[in-house]
Amino acid sequence: MSIVVVGSVAYDGVETPHGKVERMLGGSCTYISLAASYFAKAKIVGVVGDDFAEEDVALLQNQGVDIEGLERVPGKTFFWKGVYTPDMNDRTTLVTDLNVFANFEPKLPESYKDSTYLFLGNIQPALQRNVRAQMKAPWVTGGDTMNYWISDFRDELLETLKGWNFVLLNDHEARQLSGETNLRKAAKVIQAMGPNTVVIKRGEYGAMAFRGDDYFIMPGYLLESVFDPTGAGDCFAGGFMGYLAQEGIDLQKGHIDRRELSRAVIYGSVMGSYCCEKFGVDRFRTLQRSEIDARFQEFRKFTDF
Amino acid sequence: MSIVVVGSVAYDGVETPHGKVERMLGGSCTYISLAASYFAKAKIVGVVGDDFAEEDVALLQNQGVDIEGLERVPGKTFFWKGVYTPDMNDRTTLVTDLNVFANFEPKLPESYKDSTYLFLGNIQPALQRNVRAQMKAPWVTGGDTMNYWISDFRDELLETLKGWNFVLLNDHEARQLSGETNLRKAAKVIQAMGPNTVVIKRGEYGAMAFRGDDYFIMPGYLLESVFDPTGAGDCFAGGFMGYLAQEGIDLQKGHIDRRELSRAVIYGSVMGSYCCEKFGVDRFRTLQRSEIDARFQEFRKFTDF
Repeated sequence: MSIVVVGSVAYDGVETPHGKVERMLGGSCTYISLAASYFAKAKIVGVVGDDFAEEDVALLQNQGVDIEGLERVPGKTFFWKGVYTPDMNDRTTLVTDLNVFANFEPKLPESYKDSTYLFLGNIQPALQRNVRAQMKAPWVTGGDTMNYWISDFRDELLETLKGWNFVLLNDHEARQLSGETNLRKAAKVIQAMGPNTVVIKRGEYGAMAFRGDDYFIMPGYLLESVFDPTGAGDCFAGGFMGYLAQEGIDLQKGHIDRRELSRAVIYGSVMGSYCCEKFGVDRFRTLQRSEIDARFQEFRKFTDF
Repeated sequence: MSIVVVGSVAYDGVETPHGKVERMLGGSCTYISLAASYFAKAKIVGVVGDDFAEEDVALLQNQGVDIEGLERVPGKTFFWKGVYTPDMNDRTTLVTDLNVFANFEPKLPESYKDSTYLFLGNIQPALQRNVRAQMKAPWVTGGDTMNYWISDFRDELLETLKGWNFVLLNDHEARQLSGETNLRKAAKVIQAMGPNTVVIKRGEYGAMAFRGDDYFIMPGYLLESVFDPTGAGDCFAGGFMGYLAQEGIDLQKGHIDRRELSRAVIYGSVMGSYCCEKFGVDRFRTLQRSEIDARFQEFRKFTDF
């Protein structure tokens, strides 16, 4: 099974209490596809400028990521720069230069269109809908969004959500989108918007998944040290979607084994936790599938009662 | 097995988004003993004034709480008044009238001294040590504390902790006591202070238990509606200690089944969650043991993967 991933491919400048990197590979599409690539074939749709480095192309290709849909246009690649607070639970954006990403119009190569899994990263909701329309008949369509689209493009976002099987949100976004403070109630409201599966990320505190009247809650992995949280949420998305694709799970069905959804959430948490262990995508240069499965087993151990 | 519980017995005035109560039974000792009473015999040590109502004595006695150690002295009972923020994750204290609690000198009745479980609620660390000295040979001594004792009575607190088998803290207190931001590191530092078992409460996000190199993490129970969180942390303590006593677990031993500790944490969470469903101690007027066990089973369900 293969996964089409749409989103940003970028360069990031990041400062955490552990150090500073002026420019490194980043972007939601990058993190999602790298994390997903441990489970299934990831095919990316994105745009970069003529400054995009060959070594970064190589990193994606070495992980088996299909880059046929990575468009190269004249100009500069999207650049973001931010600095984290000492506890790393918050960050301040210093620079957002959209550059070539400002005019991103995702076009799917023919070879992508019969993929069965589609993950729509955080871009304008109308563009997300447009990408979905280019696909033939995916089993699972899902994605994420952000506060800006929820507040300023609400109608467009609601139209887009109607076509999704799952949506991934953090707790703030879930509250903002639903108007409900209580997350159990928030999930119900969001389910009524379209996606039968709602996954709420809670950062270091873990994640929850709601499907029908059923729900699943897991704590986060307790790292001894968080080096750089950039991309952790996207890696969660990649691990979650990757596991669904690996197992060939069809979220359109009325009934799936709830535990499969739970395992997808845990693989999401595992990928998010590994992401935090080094700067940017560095951890994926050495990470092995066996380490991923070992950490999944750790979840079994520390939640057993 | 019986549990001696030391702490405050009080009247509270509470305002939450769901309503306002001018004066109701409260205090750490009250909540802990009511929650623990579903699992084992709870024997309280506290002090009240001559305004303490007979109906509140009756509530404790109807739950089987031993009140031989509840001293009555001339004057008024400890009174606390607070108002919660709209999301109920924080509160502002409006009134703290210590009254007769200001001169509390806990004295254990003879019939309490051979109890095997001792829970020392949040009072001055020297008083906690003094109570421990009055006991014969408890299997399990533990308790909690607060930011004020950690910052202003640190040496006294460290001396007291040496004699404990477990300590219960929230995440802020664990960070403050240990000087470590990362909770895994914080737990290690606190274990070195004496208690071989460290339980860290994270409010709605659940709780963690550390013992030796082993640890356990559980998410919180997802209530549809939180009515009044007053006393939830104390009810966690009562459920946790109650389960240890019910099962006769001796934390002094080098080895215990880690899952027993995990179950104690979950029963703690269950009792904390029930506490939030009504104002003050009201939920305990009707709560049945069967409901407690049913919610414990819900934890199995929503964490199964």
